[in-house]
Amino acid sequence: MANYKMIVQYEGSRYCGWQVQNSTQNTIQGILERTLERMLAEEIEVIGSGRTDAGVHARGQSANFHCKNHIEDLPCFLTELNSHLPEDIGVVLLEEVDERFHARFSAKEKTYVYRIYTGQLHDVFNRKFQYNYTDRPLDITAMRDAASKLTGTHDFRAFCGNKNMKKSTVRTIYHIDITVGGTDAAADTNAAAAAQSEYITISYTGDGFLQNMVRILTGTLIEVGTGSIAVDSVPGILESKDRSRAGFTAPAEGLCLESVSYS
Amino acid sequence: MANYKMIVQYEGSRYCGWQVQNSTQNTIQGILERTLERMLAEEIEVIGSGRTDAGVHARGQSANFHCKNHIEDLPCFLTELNSHLPEDIGVVLLEEVDERFHARFSAKEKTYVYRIYTGQLHDVFNRKFQYNYTDRPLDITAMRDAASKLTGTHDFRAFCGNKNMKKSTVRTIYHIDITVGGTDAAADTNAAAAAQSEYITISYTGDGFLQNMVRILTGTLIEVGTGSIAVDSVPGILESKDRSRAGFTAPAEGLCLESVSYS
Repeated sequence: MANYKMIVQYEGSRYCGWQVQNSTQNTIQGILERTLERMLAEEIEVIGSGRTDAGVHARGQSANFHCKNHIEDLPCFLTELNSHLPEDIGVVLLEEVDERFHARFSAKEKTYVYRIYTGQLHDVFNRKFQYNYTDRPLDITAMRDAASKLTGTHDFRAFCGNKNMKKSTVRTIYHIDITVGGTDAAADTNAAAAAQSEYITISYTGDGFLQNMVRILTGTLIEVGTGSIAVDSVPGILESKDRSRAGFTAPAEGLCLESVSYS
Repeated sequence: MANYKMIVQYEGSRYCGWQVQNSTQNTIQGILERTLERMLAEEIEVIGSGRTDAGVHARGQSANFHCKNHIEDLPCFLTELNSHLPEDIGVVLLEEVDERFHARFSAKEKTYVYRIYTGQLHDVFNRKFQYNYTDRPLDITAMRDAASKLTGTHDFRAFCGNKNMKKSTVRTIYHIDITVGGTDAAADTNAAAAAQSEYITISYTGDGFLQNMVRILTGTLIEVGTGSIAVDSVPGILESKDRSRAGFTAPAEGLCLESVSYS
């Protein structure tokens, strides 16, 4: 059996997430499997590096699939594959890999980016890829302090959306970077300089993330930013393993799976 | 009468262009006028710096409108205006200007950018803002040579989409810059470096542009890039004033009005 790795990009807006749940739902995994099955004339299971929730985007989801048919001309097959995919899903890399490569088990590091827009205006060009948060001003210094307390190896049960999680909820976050500015929206207008400070990007790199974990971490950091959660209470929230003590689940549209690394 | 200048951004995909043509068509000018009329309770004429075609985008369209009611709190009015606009139209700047300011007649310089993607893959995130051109490889050096022959003050009648244009078709193009690369799509994938060369951006700055002119200039440069129009024939096309000798009209979705300058 040949084994192929793919890097997949998608705008998650109109999908029920990555993972096939039942045959009636519109999922990215499901579309990839049906397309590959038609092209290869055999049953295909696409293994993702992990699930992404409904509405979450990806610039660098990784996946693999085994097939009996060896694909002779990979660039040609990739072009044809893309021609059969909807325009909001694209495979940007396709390569043959070792038979033991597994997109989930072999993954060493994942980076997710959460984008927040705090401005009052319409951001026409980025609107589908960010969370518009205008309720209250955010204290970035407090958010960075809280982020440093979340970094490292912890039991993140309090930040897990699945209450019945049976497996270990210990994960390692290598770094959380909060940057202000950094998009070029409105770059040619006088309003550009002022507008820059209205974009907040939170980048999370870790060895893996639990269900909804990045969105709950983000909701918690936002609540720290508004002062409704104290920075000093963050270690206690981790220790409590109590989901109800962490912040809200930030909306899916702000989240993007940027990349997955393998050794 | 107070006079207000706006900078407007829009994703043009679902609009019949900037300019009101009849009451049944969905235009950006029409939506702005109806929204302002409801807010100000008076008849409003929104004057744009120029029309943009159906499907063309803008990051920096300029417009102005006069009104009897003086707007007291401009930031507050701007926030409310945006809350009434569809999410693919945004006003990013609103300021009171001299009564004689006219968005069209006062304009000194406009910059349009045309984006071409020559890759075979799906560009999920930029797909609505570029023209996917994969027919034949493009010779960038030849395109730059042709661009230099189009720069300057010329009669651009051969590059005008309106055959019955009665007014002067003389315009000055200050510069045409062709860059390769420059988007960050797929920036975190291994395919990124190779993919960069698949993005071509043509930036046009001039004192004004005729109907379809930027799209016809782009179609001509593409035909020079493929070799179907010779670089040396470009001056002759200008002199001929014959639309049929210039290139095709490149599709609207690749075009964006970036900025309008006033003295």
